[in-house]
Amino acid sequence: MNFIDKLNAAWKRNDSLLCVGLDPDTARFPAHLRDRPDGIVEFCKAIIDATADLACAFKPQIAYFAALGAEDQLEAICNYLRATYPHIPLILDAKRGDIGATAHQYAREAFDRYGADAVTVNPYMGFDSVEPYMAWKDRGVIVLCRTSNAGGSDLQFLDVGGQPLYQHVARLVAEKWNRNGQCALVVGATFPEELAQVRAIVGDMPLLVPGIGAQGGDIEATVKSGRTAAGAGMMINSSRAIIYAQPQGGEDFAAAARRVATETRDAINAHRG
Amino acid sequence: MNFIDKLNAAWKRNDSLLCVGLDPDTARFPAHLRDRPDGIVEFCKAIIDATADLACAFKPQIAYFAALGAEDQLEAICNYLRATYPHIPLILDAKRGDIGATAHQYAREAFDRYGADAVTVNPYMGFDSVEPYMAWKDRGVIVLCRTSNAGGSDLQFLDVGGQPLYQHVARLVAEKWNRNGQCALVVGATFPEELAQVRAIVGDMPLLVPGIGAQGGDIEATVKSGRTAAGAGMMINSSRAIIYAQPQGGEDFAAAARRVATETRDAINAHRG
Repeated sequence: MNFIDKLNAAWKRNDSLLCVGLDPDTARFPAHLRDRPDGIVEFCKAIIDATADLACAFKPQIAYFAALGAEDQLEAICNYLRATYPHIPLILDAKRGDIGATAHQYAREAFDRYGADAVTVNPYMGFDSVEPYMAWKDRGVIVLCRTSNAGGSDLQFLDVGGQPLYQHVARLVAEKWNRNGQCALVVGATFPEELAQVRAIVGDMPLLVPGIGAQGGDIEATVKSGRTAAGAGMMINSSRAIIYAQPQGGEDFAAAARRVATETRDAINAHRG
Repeated sequence: MNFIDKLNAAWKRNDSLLCVGLDPDTARFPAHLRDRPDGIVEFCKAIIDATADLACAFKPQIAYFAALGAEDQLEAICNYLRATYPHIPLILDAKRGDIGATAHQYAREAFDRYGADAVTVNPYMGFDSVEPYMAWKDRGVIVLCRTSNAGGSDLQFLDVGGQPLYQHVARLVAEKWNRNGQCALVVGATFPEELAQVRAIVGDMPLLVPGIGAQGGDIEATVKSGRTAAGAGMMINSSRAIIYAQPQGGEDFAAAARRVATETRDAINAHRG
């Protein structure tokens, strides 16, 4: 099953547009996992097990593994996810961008080594830096469009022929790059009006939407701005607000993650229309 | 010594603007190194030893290691380079781009894990995605500006207020982002006129220039367009043309790499003025 079909099936099966981001910062782990050599694997497996029926996707952020030299733990997490929850898409958040021959190596990293269903990529180097990923016909390519950080405007909001650069990128991807129906876009939740404009440009193309939760984006405005006519079309990501949820009462970290993931999924669903 | 000073010293010491790119594709290795578990380390060490007096920098491309799960070999190569040739800058070609907290993780990867003197980064997400690298005050941050691939024009050549986007990026970096004098730019050799325009914008800022050798850029036009008044200011990269040079006569691969590196350095020097 290809990425888009798998994503559609996960939206339905779990009645969820919530993507759970895995940004493992060992300093924020529970004490008993902090210094274990497989601490990141155990932490992420517990989060995955606690939220797999609430999520439409999981999104490990490779930078957190790379900083620690913990690629082997990322491999183990990806293997576990694919074996245990094969119906939930695995998105590798890597934001790679390089010329063709090198992009091919990054595609091997994402798709062959980690077995990701989709990978995030950067459009600055143009189509021939994105095309190599499309050789994996059943995988998804999620192109950065409008990012949720303050500095995102530095380039993305520049006027390009009467429209901001991020809208030009949305059009490029929708009208030219998405030849095989493998593409999606990253559009941050911090600018709901801009999310609505991208949705108007790209039809039903899936949008990966970071910026709710710890980054402060408003769920109602995000869902109403980004949903498709069918009330789906989004992978709304929350990472830190879920995986580092403050335990209450007798909860452990995984139960706390489940509670916040449930609340977030339900808050999203309240506005899908 | 900080990156810019180290680069200046290497330009002088080796009378060279040549950056040797390490893109290890094991399929192109000599047969005796192809299947060794430390084959990449041995290959790269041999290239480094054969060219260290001819280069102003070495630039490993991390994608080739990531595709193979060979980060440990990249670590070994970086450790060898820093220990054996501490006067030659080590540039990690990673082209990372992500928001602040994640960019900080990528900076740890480049600077703490691999000990790179400088790292390449992508500007699409704006200044707050670049600034975290600058917390390492003695390291360099080399921002993508104009890339040498055909698709580079898709975004970089868009008109932004009367100038192409890549020139806007050059101005942003030169006038705003380069607060601490840590920045350099990537500008491809395939468009010498554009290289000259970037040089006019950024003064003496160092430029990392890929695209000669296997990518076909013209050395004379590249050097004349990109040099500073002092006849330096560039790290002109060649990867495949050097590391996979065809051996002649009784040469082995490292001797062939040395021969082509010497020819390339000398061809560059012939036009420094």
